[in-house]
Amino acid sequence: MTQVKAYAAEKADKPVGPFKIDRRDVGENDVEIEILFCGVCHSDIHTARNEWGGTMYPVVPGHEIVGKVSKIGDKVKNHKVGDTVGVGCFVDSCGHCDNCEDDLEQYCENGNSQTYNSKLQDKKTITYGGYSTHIVVTEKFVLKVSDKLDLAGVAPLLCAGITTYSPLKHWNCKKGDKVAVVGLGGLGHMAVKLASSMGAEVTMLSRSPEKEKDAEELGAHHFMLTTEKENMEKMANSFDLIINTVSAKHDYNEYLALLRTNGTMVLLGVPPEALPVAAPNLIFGRRSLVGSLVGGIKETQEMLDYCAEHNIVSDIEMINIDKINEAYERTLKGDVHYRFVIDMASLKN
Amino acid sequence: MTQVKAYAAEKADKPVGPFKIDRRDVGENDVEIEILFCGVCHSDIHTARNEWGGTMYPVVPGHEIVGKVSKIGDKVKNHKVGDTVGVGCFVDSCGHCDNCEDDLEQYCENGNSQTYNSKLQDKKTITYGGYSTHIVVTEKFVLKVSDKLDLAGVAPLLCAGITTYSPLKHWNCKKGDKVAVVGLGGLGHMAVKLASSMGAEVTMLSRSPEKEKDAEELGAHHFMLTTEKENMEKMANSFDLIINTVSAKHDYNEYLALLRTNGTMVLLGVPPEALPVAAPNLIFGRRSLVGSLVGGIKETQEMLDYCAEHNIVSDIEMINIDKINEAYERTLKGDVHYRFVIDMASLKN
Repeated sequence: MTQVKAYAAEKADKPVGPFKIDRRDVGENDVEIEILFCGVCHSDIHTARNEWGGTMYPVVPGHEIVGKVSKIGDKVKNHKVGDTVGVGCFVDSCGHCDNCEDDLEQYCENGNSQTYNSKLQDKKTITYGGYSTHIVVTEKFVLKVSDKLDLAGVAPLLCAGITTYSPLKHWNCKKGDKVAVVGLGGLGHMAVKLASSMGAEVTMLSRSPEKEKDAEELGAHHFMLTTEKENMEKMANSFDLIINTVSAKHDYNEYLALLRTNGTMVLLGVPPEALPVAAPNLIFGRRSLVGSLVGGIKETQEMLDYCAEHNIVSDIEMINIDKINEAYERTLKGDVHYRFVIDMASLKN
Repeated sequence: MTQVKAYAAEKADKPVGPFKIDRRDVGENDVEIEILFCGVCHSDIHTARNEWGGTMYPVVPGHEIVGKVSKIGDKVKNHKVGDTVGVGCFVDSCGHCDNCEDDLEQYCENGNSQTYNSKLQDKKTITYGGYSTHIVVTEKFVLKVSDKLDLAGVAPLLCAGITTYSPLKHWNCKKGDKVAVVGLGGLGHMAVKLASSMGAEVTMLSRSPEKEKDAEELGAHHFMLTTEKENMEKMANSFDLIINTVSAKHDYNEYLALLRTNGTMVLLGVPPEALPVAAPNLIFGRRSLVGSLVGGIKETQEMLDYCAEHNIVSDIEMINIDKINEAYERTLKGDVHYRFVIDMASLKN
């Protein structure tokens, strides 16, 4: 075991602060990573504050990790010391259920091991995330990252990127498709970038007129205020796919009505309560309301390769780790364009 | 114009009774049909009683029509006098929108002409349904019916049959799939027959223990009482497809939890209000909640041919037309196994 520096929440009502954790010795299939950057995901805040319940304190958040390989086990084949790599939301899974065999580790039937506030496959060892100088992860869950990209901007691809890439691919987003993105935050800004890179005609749906300029700079072809009834009527039956990133309470039916026949609305956000769906909105037009969770390891690698090829990274604001609590407050207010990323060098000194 | 005998509701609060309507002269593309049998669909009752609003009185219900061709127009190619034919929920559509071009006339973007309580494509002439001795329909919306089958049992295929066949095909029901059917009524009993004929392992989900015997006779491999919490836990994450025919208020989330990863629940019934959906039930498992409306003309023909090949008809109780109001009451109580069909000979005399 090696003790490393980290930042942890020790209680729900305490700020995140300096902490020390043990990282396991590098086993034969393990990769030790010196973390360079870690993105700040809304899930980090929910977990640190126990807003979803089940937080095991102390918790070290962070699942948008980019770093350099600093050590490898004897049997590691795909990574070598000095490689640039990434770790996302998962660090292990059972490996043998139907979903794992289908490269859908995010839906592992026996419970995967999330990067933090979770247990390894021994069902005992608690996981600690990327707000730390180093992490040790089994080879299969370590992704290759191209050095062509800005590495700080790559970090959020490991969660926000794959969470939007996966449904765009699964529901077959392609050239000429009309895609709407609801909500312009960490997920929404990646959905706009990715969908437009795939050749879709992208419309940003928002309640905030001040987001228009940003949406267009990110690649949206159209910006429509959903607060204008006239706009909603004009867009009725027009989209093939809606990527809905909103986690506040809102009216699904208003958006379902914007789908064409056979259109699909993908939910990525979890509103605080179940929201009503009117059956005719699905029946008339054979529409689908679906959900999607992150993406599997194989698809995450595909996404990282795709982003390297298309020169796509997240728009970020870099912070030192001692500003993490301030970053949480600003994230909650939506005051971030569009992801905070911690410069992990700030933790070393 | 030819005056023919019919049964109509003249007001929302009046029973359905004898009436006379005019049928148009047979145009060059028209087929005149002498109606032999007409199924009694729940929609007939909703419309006769104006429960969905918008009923144009007098209304002649009936959209599960089987009969013999009695006259054809000069340009009719696909039907000849004496042929056994069927008419379902639609008698025309615009023919040139994207959906019509994709053989999805049920979703015609310019508004299709439903078989009753609707308007023809002139947007003026009101349509009257199958509770009548004859109907005149444009050739394209007249289906061929095999004489191999019991024709009274074929009538409900034109609505209940295609409404369940279409989603089973669209969501790719195949050998070995685990399919659940919720609700054992007119739609549910056809869903069980069709899904089991396609090789699926069919589970009937019901709140009524007395339906077990029937479900098994119809082809269900399993029968599970949804009122038993233990059953619901046992079935969690187990179905590829759920055909949900229930139009009463119920909890979608309970059923979504029974779907496997990538599973789909199809709504065919319209509950009286929008019902809550919890996003995690869709997100964890990439599940889909979808709706489906009847089926297009091409697919309806495919369904009729399929049923002829597999010897599938609806289970019916035949009535004379003067028992129609009694049949409505019994339908509302669920006291029918599983569709009333009017012997239209009873209207002639």
